[in-house]
Amino acid sequence: MRNIDETTITQAVLERFADTPDPRHRRIFESLVRHLHGFAREVRLTEAEWGQAIDFLTRTGQVCDARRQEFILLSDVLGLSMLTVAMHHDGGEGCTESTVFGPFHVAGAPEIDQGEDIARGAPGMPCEVAATVRGEDGAPVAGALVDVWQADAEGLYDVQRPELDHAQNRARLRTDSAGALRFRAVVPQAYPIPTDGPVGELLRAAGRHPWRPAHLHFMIAAPGYETLVTHVFRADDAYLDSDAVFGVRQSLLAQWEPAPQGGYRMHHDFVLQRSRTAAAVP
Amino acid sequence: MRNIDETTITQAVLERFADTPDPRHRRIFESLVRHLHGFAREVRLTEAEWGQAIDFLTRTGQVCDARRQEFILLSDVLGLSMLTVAMHHDGGEGCTESTVFGPFHVAGAPEIDQGEDIARGAPGMPCEVAATVRGEDGAPVAGALVDVWQADAEGLYDVQRPELDHAQNRARLRTDSAGALRFRAVVPQAYPIPTDGPVGELLRAAGRHPWRPAHLHFMIAAPGYETLVTHVFRADDAYLDSDAVFGVRQSLLAQWEPAPQGGYRMHHDFVLQRSRTAAAVP
Repeated sequence: MRNIDETTITQAVLERFADTPDPRHRRIFESLVRHLHGFAREVRLTEAEWGQAIDFLTRTGQVCDARRQEFILLSDVLGLSMLTVAMHHDGGEGCTESTVFGPFHVAGAPEIDQGEDIARGAPGMPCEVAATVRGEDGAPVAGALVDVWQADAEGLYDVQRPELDHAQNRARLRTDSAGALRFRAVVPQAYPIPTDGPVGELLRAAGRHPWRPAHLHFMIAAPGYETLVTHVFRADDAYLDSDAVFGVRQSLLAQWEPAPQGGYRMHHDFVLQRSRTAAAVP
Repeated sequence: MRNIDETTITQAVLERFADTPDPRHRRIFESLVRHLHGFAREVRLTEAEWGQAIDFLTRTGQVCDARRQEFILLSDVLGLSMLTVAMHHDGGEGCTESTVFGPFHVAGAPEIDQGEDIARGAPGMPCEVAATVRGEDGAPVAGALVDVWQADAEGLYDVQRPELDHAQNRARLRTDSAGALRFRAVVPQAYPIPTDGPVGELLRAAGRHPWRPAHLHFMIAAPGYETLVTHVFRADDAYLDSDAVFGVRQSLLAQWEPAPQGGYRMHHDFVLQRSRTAAAVP
């Protein structure tokens, strides 16, 4: 192809991807090329704008490190993360809905026993969290591995506090024989996603606020079930209708309410979907 | 919006960008969201694939530094760079066609006088380059600022040789009163774009070769004219029909031919387009 121009380029690129050995890769590459070119053509992207985009993407990669994942954040604010989640977790009747994973999960959080405190010194109003994990048939799921993580009362995850030398507000524990879960934590508060990087520039350019409604993250894994990645949101939050990352689902709201013995308490019941692949044992 | 699902998410995201103050930004953001979501929906992008993409983009940003721009390279191999160039440089009848800028330009290359050597010790067969720069009316463009850069006989640009302490194969010079340009250089050779980073992974996954046909880069700027970014390609190159970055245009081919006094010589005539904005004086 020696006569590349505006009208021939897309077909020329598609032909170059036509021999991609893996059929799934080929489908993804071809669709990506068509949609990226379609975008550039539709807005008649200028070279100066293209240069700004290159610079934006480069800086987005460079601000990432072991504690920060700006590309996940970018995907989140563009609704791409939630779209991907929604396409693959229709849940099934009665199952707990999924939502975005977010950029603040850390693998290998401390393992705790039932009833322990995940806050480990994080600021916030103390609360007791109780939950059950069941299958679609109502049977308790014993021994499910539950990852929980959340921001503190100042809206920060532990990884956003470089001065910390230990995990806060994140832990792993297992459901008991009745599928129940109890731990202590602090009441989550609404917080702004980080705006000191490229994603912040995007939000400001769009006139968008960076707030997420208060929530507690759960990832629940058990043999024979689809792994559930979700949040429980505070039902009284002001940002439920404008979550910066489009994660809210009405079924995931819960009350953090004053407890008779002082502090707060929250209860939520999770229903896991059966594995869609028969042999899926973690 | 509390009931985000696969069918509602795109509209919800578009609404969030609807108040973008700058109309051009709004148009770009909305088109980007529609096309990105369209891509993810069309291929039903899985969370695992999304995770691979996040990782790929992150590493693409992180491999960039003062000497390497992997995001430009990614845009190049996806044909997006050439599309952007082609949309905005239809050239005008008789004007020299544009092609991709590429990732290897360096601002502030050494300034040289007519007839000097840009190679400065780079390996390769010596050649004399002669060119003219004219306007569409045939009038010579005197004093045009010309940036030239190229790879050496081993297919490397100076920025790819960390051991070098001075510029090689790049320079800036000005056309004389007749619009002419002469300098010494080495004969360019075909070379593979860098494949030791994420772009290399993409090419391997697609079964694509990384080669670019031999070429010499030119950027020519003069008051009253559109800045021209282009290459001159070796007409005898084996990769003219399969340039990894889709940059070849038939009108940009030239012969590097043996010179009577030894070495090689190449001649090319450039025609600049009048500025499309009346007041465009660099």
